[in-house]
Amino acid sequence: MKSTAYDLLERVRQQKPVVHHLTNWVTIYDCAQVVKTLGASPVMAHAREEAAEMTQIASALVLNIGTLTVDFVEAMKLAALCANKKGIPVVLDVCGTGATALRDRKCLELMNEVRINVIKGNASEVARVSGESVKTRGVDATEVGGDLVLLAEKLAEQRKATVVITGKVDIATDGRQTHLVKNGHPLMTHVVGTGCMATSVIGAFAAVESDLTLAAACALACYEIAAELAAENAAGPASFKERLFDCLFNLDRDTVGRMQRIETPRLSR
Amino acid sequence: MKSTAYDLLERVRQQKPVVHHLTNWVTIYDCAQVVKTLGASPVMAHAREEAAEMTQIASALVLNIGTLTVDFVEAMKLAALCANKKGIPVVLDVCGTGATALRDRKCLELMNEVRINVIKGNASEVARVSGESVKTRGVDATEVGGDLVLLAEKLAEQRKATVVITGKVDIATDGRQTHLVKNGHPLMTHVVGTGCMATSVIGAFAAVESDLTLAAACALACYEIAAELAAENAAGPASFKERLFDCLFNLDRDTVGRMQRIETPRLSR
Amino acid sequence: MKSTAYDLLERVRQQKPVVHHLTNWVTIYDCAQVVKTLGASPVMAHAREEAAEMTQIASALVLNIGTLTVDFVEAMKLAALCANKKGIPVVLDVCGTGATALRDRKCLELMNEVRINVIKGNASEVARVSGESVKTRGVDATEVGGDLVLLAEKLAEQRKATVVITGKVDIATDGRQTHLVKNGHPLMTHVVGTGCMATSVIGAFAAVESDLTLAAACALACYEIAAELAAENAAGPASFKERLFDCLFNLDRDTVGRMQRIETPRLSR
Repeated sequence: MKSTAYDLLERVRQQKPVVHHLTNWVTIYDCAQVVKTLGASPVMAHAREEAAEMTQIASALVLNIGTLTVDFVEAMKLAALCANKKGIPVVLDVCGTGATALRDRKCLELMNEVRINVIKGNASEVARVSGESVKTRGVDATEVGGDLVLLAEKLAEQRKATVVITGKVDIATDGRQTHLVKNGHPLMTHVVGTGCMATSVIGAFAAVESDLTLAAACALACYEIAAELAAENAAGPASFKERLFDCLFNLDRDTVGRMQRIETPRLSR
Repeated sequence: MKSTAYDLLERVRQQKPVVHHLTNWVTIYDCAQVVKTLGASPVMAHAREEAAEMTQIASALVLNIGTLTVDFVEAMKLAALCANKKGIPVVLDVCGTGATALRDRKCLELMNEVRINVIKGNASEVARVSGESVKTRGVDATEVGGDLVLLAEKLAEQRKATVVITGKVDIATDGRQTHLVKNGHPLMTHVVGTGCMATSVIGAFAAVESDLTLAAACALACYEIAAELAAENAAGPASFKERLFDCLFNLDRDTVGRMQRIETPRLSR
Repeated sequence: MKSTAYDLLERVRQQKPVVHHLTNWVTIYDCAQVVKTLGASPVMAHAREEAAEMTQIASALVLNIGTLTVDFVEAMKLAALCANKKGIPVVLDVCGTGATALRDRKCLELMNEVRINVIKGNASEVARVSGESVKTRGVDATEVGGDLVLLAEKLAEQRKATVVITGKVDIATDGRQTHLVKNGHPLMTHVVGTGCMATSVIGAFAAVESDLTLAAACALACYEIAAELAAENAAGPASFKERLFDCLFNLDRDTVGRMQRIETPRLSR
């Protein structure tokens, strides 16, 4: 790889990019705090009158449809059009697609009407936005058969975007280059918002590295290394979450270098 | 009792029911996390275009008017009508009734226009929705004179619902069978959202047990046993809250069996 | 000073004032919890149908435009007009002014159409609402040249309000009397919401002390003493934040008396 995960984290800490969010009301605090913990500057402004203008001062835009409404998605589009024009990356968490028609339709609208640079979800959500008829169970992952890497690569090619599927092994691909991230810890699945936070971390890394697939893989590696460290001695999901922030804040080059498990198994198909 | 509190917790952990919420913006994260901590799957979707459809995949619906708006209550009704049709329990937290006319009016609308299976509040809130002229002080409990058990039983009969009054002693009744739950800890009153979380826990237990009065009592017992455990060595409200989640996550049969204080003092009147 | 910081904290704990908020969706929980931790009673009700009525039961009103919308600001005005009529203090956090035209415009509207008793922001935000052409970077502070005390005093005179600028040294002034608060800890800048919480703490103190400039200085001193205590042994921003709540909950007269660093360097100009 051109840069290691820690190189990019260091860049985030030094450049302190503004990462604008239009995200959900459940995990909005955690999305902001995880970006702040990285040393970057989160901002959340969803009014249609300012969503685009706030994007002007940002270096990345994170969209998350977790608690979408029709109006909220309109504000997302305004922000994303501004991001597209300005040339900053737009990261979309396709949270809960497959659960309702509204989510499916609005994700498609976003992907069709603006340029989404990184599409991120769990296996069932990404399968759904790829056009497969998966019925998901709310916002938690449903098992999906088949080759997830292939699924991600196809969607990446079709959408000319980086596609990220999170799970036991995370996949980040632009259809030509694919990284697998094998960091993480099962306790993450017991904490609400670990997926949303991952998306925000990807946004912060995408703000400082133009190879968005690399940025996504490095973001996930750093975040999930912090999760592995946090899980040591955690008494349950809440102490785990507190430690996750503290460990992410304190990550150093040695630890990331030693623990990073990013694999790049194949060249372009 | 037919089942112990731990039996129902075990059922939640095994069945992992989806618990759909239309709740308030203050404690929405904690409502989700407490349901996740039980092993169930929380989902929050308030757009009127999907509130009902999301209910289709749920096993219980939790409504909380903490930060209600007129539109939000309309989405609640759509979700509740779907829940009624599907036959899954609807739990309503009558948060802040008595503080404003809007809250009183919208609670009555909900209770009149859809079927609410569990009505839950503190003493002054439940007195208010029973038609008593209590002026509450925001969202914190006001002292109410008289026999709270009788108040709850009357409302239960009138509304053909389970009524839950939380307080030092919690009351759960369907008007015939009444359970008193004597678990809990005073530190709970120093943490924002302990009441809302209790409602969500009731929702998760109601998803797996058709005797909703029993479900509510067992839910409160488990939740409040975790609170008692959390209070040991807590340094203040924030460490208490973190420990509450961790203790709830780790509850085992022995502990619940030993600590559970559910009393069922009388048969039907 | 007429009262010490601890005297006012004690008064909050005894009077338990209701502090009504119309605040942002990112830090709404923390705003509520910090007020609750002081022993006061937070309430958050933003529906335009009840925003004013809820103000009727409150002893202070806190407005924060962090995630403003046009409708939300209209509800703020209704609440503030009620507060003005009732004679309770209105505290406005001018969060993110300078970042977008909407924020600037809506802050001016609020300051012009209702009576704001305490205007609070960081240096760049307060410079902006003073009419200086500062371009801020989202919601994090931007460096501002010049004499901040003079800036605050001028705005206070112009607006007939208490003006608070938070930073390494906090300034609270009504244009005649100026207090400098030198408590606090750098870890506060790594936690999302420390500024919003400061505003809510000011609201709680303003509810019990009619000298709002003194109330603001004492509020900041207590809150920031808790932060100093919390920073001891904190492992990062999340454990720091948990400890901040616990330390604030446990503050006693001796500790506040010993650590309080409020300076009142000059009489009226």
